[in-house]
Amino acid sequence: MDYSQLVGEIFKKNSFLCVGLDTDFNKIPKCLQSLPKEKALMTFNKSIIDATAPYAVAFKPNVAFYESEGLTGWKVLADSIAYIKQYYPEILVIADAKRGDIGNTSERYAAAMFDNLQADAVTVVPYMGKDSVAPFLAHKGKWTIILALTSNTGSEDFQFLPTFEEDVTAPQIKCQSKGRLTLTEAQSGGSLAPLYEQVLSTASAWGSKDNTMFVIGATQAEMLTDVRKIVLKNFLLVPGVGAQGGSLEAVAEFGMTAECGLLVNSSRGIIYAGNDEYFACVAAEKAKDLQQQMAKLLYKHTRLYVK
Amino acid sequence: MDYSQLVGEIFKKNSFLCVGLDTDFNKIPKCLQSLPKEKALMTFNKSIIDATAPYAVAFKPNVAFYESEGLTGWKVLADSIAYIKQYYPEILVIADAKRGDIGNTSERYAAAMFDNLQADAVTVVPYMGKDSVAPFLAHKGKWTIILALTSNTGSEDFQFLPTFEEDVTAPQIKCQSKGRLTLTEAQSGGSLAPLYEQVLSTASAWGSKDNTMFVIGATQAEMLTDVRKIVLKNFLLVPGVGAQGGSLEAVAEFGMTAECGLLVNSSRGIIYAGNDEYFACVAAEKAKDLQQQMAKLLYKHTRLYVK
Repeated sequence: MDYSQLVGEIFKKNSFLCVGLDTDFNKIPKCLQSLPKEKALMTFNKSIIDATAPYAVAFKPNVAFYESEGLTGWKVLADSIAYIKQYYPEILVIADAKRGDIGNTSERYAAAMFDNLQADAVTVVPYMGKDSVAPFLAHKGKWTIILALTSNTGSEDFQFLPTFEEDVTAPQIKCQSKGRLTLTEAQSGGSLAPLYEQVLSTASAWGSKDNTMFVIGATQAEMLTDVRKIVLKNFLLVPGVGAQGGSLEAVAEFGMTAECGLLVNSSRGIIYAGNDEYFACVAAEKAKDLQQQMAKLLYKHTRLYVK
Repeated sequence: MDYSQLVGEIFKKNSFLCVGLDTDFNKIPKCLQSLPKEKALMTFNKSIIDATAPYAVAFKPNVAFYESEGLTGWKVLADSIAYIKQYYPEILVIADAKRGDIGNTSERYAAAMFDNLQADAVTVVPYMGKDSVAPFLAHKGKWTIILALTSNTGSEDFQFLPTFEEDVTAPQIKCQSKGRLTLTEAQSGGSLAPLYEQVLSTASAWGSKDNTMFVIGATQAEMLTDVRKIVLKNFLLVPGVGAQGGSLEAVAEFGMTAECGLLVNSSRGIIYAGNDEYFACVAAEKAKDLQQQMAKLLYKHTRLYVK
């Protein structure tokens, strides 16, 4: 699915909702837990997918939840993606896998997610740099979603570290010993910016708005203003609305582009909203609630809203 | 396997060799490729494990290579680890997975690697900070191997970025706006250090030498001197000797502690050294070569060498 198709879907459904499939056997309704595990997980996923598809433009299976169930989990993951592809081919499938390694290994992770599982998009970690991300970007028609700013407390440990950024208009500083620079040397040709901003500016040049998105945690909604100074048009995948506490209004206010440019995820707030035999209906209601809020925000902030 | 058991194994075998199981169906000997894929991959792994076990203290399956084969690959990965556990329980099994996510998701990755696959150690990415790594550290008797400095060219993109480090002996700077600090402000209370050094100093405080190792790329062997100023005793997992070009002598010279403190990995240089029906013998010879070099280096640099 390319950029314009994604924008088209968003304005067809008046929704930028991504439903996170963080499927946990211990949290699904009791009435399903009596089934064999694979059947239980698959029934839950199919029910959630069918119930929320009218309101969502993306599904995001969280790979960890399947991986921890071993072969059974991996099969449910593959079958769930195949189910979405068969019945809802217009919905983007994001494998939330946070992968990334040296080039020949990232190639295999990209093959696992794009070729084997048939996901449309995969989340990747930028710590190892360009050649660890390039093998994902090399898959035409697929999306690479790069981690920039996350919504957990640990984001403060490294993502906010002030890092030296060379001033491209000033005479260049040659950093003789890697990473070693006195503050006096630094002062003559640069400034300090948080690491996540450098990740955005560096990594946004690796691809384009047509194949690259960024993860930006919603608990930091006001920071979306800074983010949008660096990545003008790329889609941002925003987790953390709902259970993790972000505000949808703030995310739209600070992060929305004229073509939306946002996918906002909700996982637990939708899929575990109900815990009896009506769980799918409850999930549908929660998804519809979010979609209706999203429709209003699209109307308010963009020029493409179609009733 | 705890720290002292690992040190004991190293000096029993006079080896700090980790054999990387980057098993790729297209690279295994032709004589195996005629078998059904699962049988072919498993036969290859068992042969390599049996042939190199006398010279190795760790095996490191690279999870990407199995994941890209879907269910078949995941089964081969699980069965290979089970095989090592059954026949070589004294050898450390490192799941090279480069995982890491928010807390409740990292818990599931830790469960996948430690409980489901029964690995002794897992590689993790520190970008998301402490709460993304803590769920791995919470598994008693297991090892968390944190990425610090990698051997790929992309390591230059972020790992070497000069980052502001507060001088703890100077009056504290309160950074009002996260990550935003003028260089003049910074000058009054800190210095600039490469990001990977900050990862080492911050992350080494999350655990101890008994449950935390760090990945340090071998193409940067001279940097091990700086690394050892920050992490005195932790084991370092060093990839990149062999196919990726690092020198074993330099790694030992700059990185070895009195109790070794190193696991040096070789993957392609061992497992694909032969490509006919004698591949396992050739792999054994290559592993033995490395073990013999390692024995000399242990004799040269430590006080625990036992003939």
